[in-house]
Amino acid sequence: MSEGDGQQGVALTLDEVRSLARRVLRAAGLAGDHADAVAETMVAGERGGCASHGIYRLLVAANTIAKGKVVRDAVPVLTEPARALARVDGGGGFAQLAFETGKPVLVAKARACGIAALALNHVVHFAALWPEVEALAAEGLVALAFTPSHAWVAPAGGTRPVFGTNPIAFGWPRAAPNPPFVFDFATSMVARGEIELHRRAGRAVPEDWGIDAEGQPTTDPAAILDGAMRTFGGHKGSALAAMVELVAGPLIGDLTSVESIAADGGAGASPLGGELIVAIDPAGFLGDAVAEHLVRAESMFSAIEAQGARLPSSRRYAARARSLAEGVRIPEPLYADILALEASLTA
Amino acid sequence: MSEGDGQQGVALTLDEVRSLARRVLRAAGLAGDHADAVAETMVAGERGGCASHGIYRLLVAANTIAKGKVVRDAVPVLTEPARALARVDGGGGFAQLAFETGKPVLVAKARACGIAALALNHVVHFAALWPEVEALAAEGLVALAFTPSHAWVAPAGGTRPVFGTNPIAFGWPRAAPNPPFVFDFATSMVARGEIELHRRAGRAVPEDWGIDAEGQPTTDPAAILDGAMRTFGGHKGSALAAMVELVAGPLIGDLTSVESIAADGGAGASPLGGELIVAIDPAGFLGDAVAEHLVRAESMFSAIEAQGARLPSSRRYAARARSLAEGVRIPEPLYADILALEASLTA
Repeated sequence: MSEGDGQQGVALTLDEVRSLARRVLRAAGLAGDHADAVAETMVAGERGGCASHGIYRLLVAANTIAKGKVVRDAVPVLTEPARALARVDGGGGFAQLAFETGKPVLVAKARACGIAALALNHVVHFAALWPEVEALAAEGLVALAFTPSHAWVAPAGGTRPVFGTNPIAFGWPRAAPNPPFVFDFATSMVARGEIELHRRAGRAVPEDWGIDAEGQPTTDPAAILDGAMRTFGGHKGSALAAMVELVAGPLIGDLTSVESIAADGGAGASPLGGELIVAIDPAGFLGDAVAEHLVRAESMFSAIEAQGARLPSSRRYAARARSLAEGVRIPEPLYADILALEASLTA
Repeated sequence: MSEGDGQQGVALTLDEVRSLARRVLRAAGLAGDHADAVAETMVAGERGGCASHGIYRLLVAANTIAKGKVVRDAVPVLTEPARALARVDGGGGFAQLAFETGKPVLVAKARACGIAALALNHVVHFAALWPEVEALAAEGLVALAFTPSHAWVAPAGGTRPVFGTNPIAFGWPRAAPNPPFVFDFATSMVARGEIELHRRAGRAVPEDWGIDAEGQPTTDPAAILDGAMRTFGGHKGSALAAMVELVAGPLIGDLTSVESIAADGGAGASPLGGELIVAIDPAGFLGDAVAEHLVRAESMFSAIEAQGARLPSSRRYAARARSLAEGVRIPEPLYADILALEASLTA
């Protein structure tokens, strides 16, 4: 670890990020297996140049732990409710270990049946979904993932929050050396963290990001945080947000975003609820012709990139290559906050 | 059937729409079982107040038949490539009969395995997807459907067509008397027919609908039809459009939109290719607690409607109720065109 050398922030290798995250999470009281699993998603965030899902989330996770809104030593319990379905009851713990518990069974079921689904239930979720669909794509599977959050987002044509930021993630396997085709986006116009950042910076936001508590358009980020965010893409994004609520809420017997924020009771902890992950084995429909047809997908990717358009995740993958070679930079105030947190936890 | 009586257009009962559609499709040379299946989707379009997917499509279907771009008497062939997968090779015929052939097996597999998928291959597609997901929701299943089309839509950040209008449809079962929660939308900014309508009317379109053949923004609908349409919701809609290409193209061994328009060879026929339909049985995850959890979905629908926002398909369901009671009105010029078509086919 070294400071300075001309660039901004504290320079860390990814191993140093990992060690720091594991140490702080353990100090916060998280069981070792959870701490390790949660730390990996923060490493993945930093590595991909996504600061908002990086080591910053130590502060978020520590808050959720301190508020008693996550079970620190929950033991995920796997069941198989149907031939092509798996379920992991996360017992109120963070989602990462629940996913790790269910992933091998989801992979096996997708390969055996052609398609399969995994429900994570009763988990606390604060991470991006792309690490999960990327992990499945790395196994050669096509994957979709959905999760509700807290009710912060109004339906199109409405004025009050019903939906969470309700991300949709998708992964598609590609032959080496290409990393999987992956996207992961909120069905809200922007991530909630974007609005937070504008509020902290005292900057106005575009008028289509949200509405105030009276349902009126506003460019004041604080008013939106007290009011409602908007979905992306008008009624289409709103329809997708509703779908995420349904398939990763009632369909798997878990909370909607309205129910999750009610359960939070103003603690400001991370959302509690479920996640649905669907995996499809290309060999199911294609048999021996998988490689032949995946090449046709590559033609589509080429047609996109040949005109100067980017594939989703291309920036993240470029950042990953840089981070693996050069390590990452953590803003000094954030690094100081994390060290202060660690000191307070170990005092 | 009666004309006039104060309202515009030719008044038809839905049975009269059905008879007319069946008659014209048979006259165009379509085998009886295909004609009946295709006619039902036109009846559904008219009934739902969606003129662009109603009896107007007789002209579209007749053109595809006349150009030799559909196999008029194709016999769909069902196979079961994996425990939770079904596939229907449509043999180059219209998609409707292929779906009818595969639907019972998809339903049975979803109930047996918890989740299942049906691929339609080698079908000609010109209809909306909502009748299919609604039919599955009526069986108590959650359903998703995807299909590419012709390459008319540029990726976000690009200038040349790669994607089709690539619709995504979703259906969710609701207890009577509520019809299923259903949405079905193009991942392009608007349906291609919308741009056609503006061109015919000599009206400019909003600047975010498309670009001209040089990749420049334009409000000229003809220039967009020669150039490229845009996806809805910027890079998020573009990512979804790519997903539709992948899962209903290479994943099931069928054409991308670029390949479909190449196969068309300028004939202007309906897209040829595949469709992927995923069905999930709520009882898979919920067992005996289905009703209890579907009630929680109803709370979400109520929260949306209580603030004056509409559920997707609410206008269509209202139109359906009116059409069932009062029949429908067909614009006189369209009705005249259809009768002229019929006369030419039977001459």
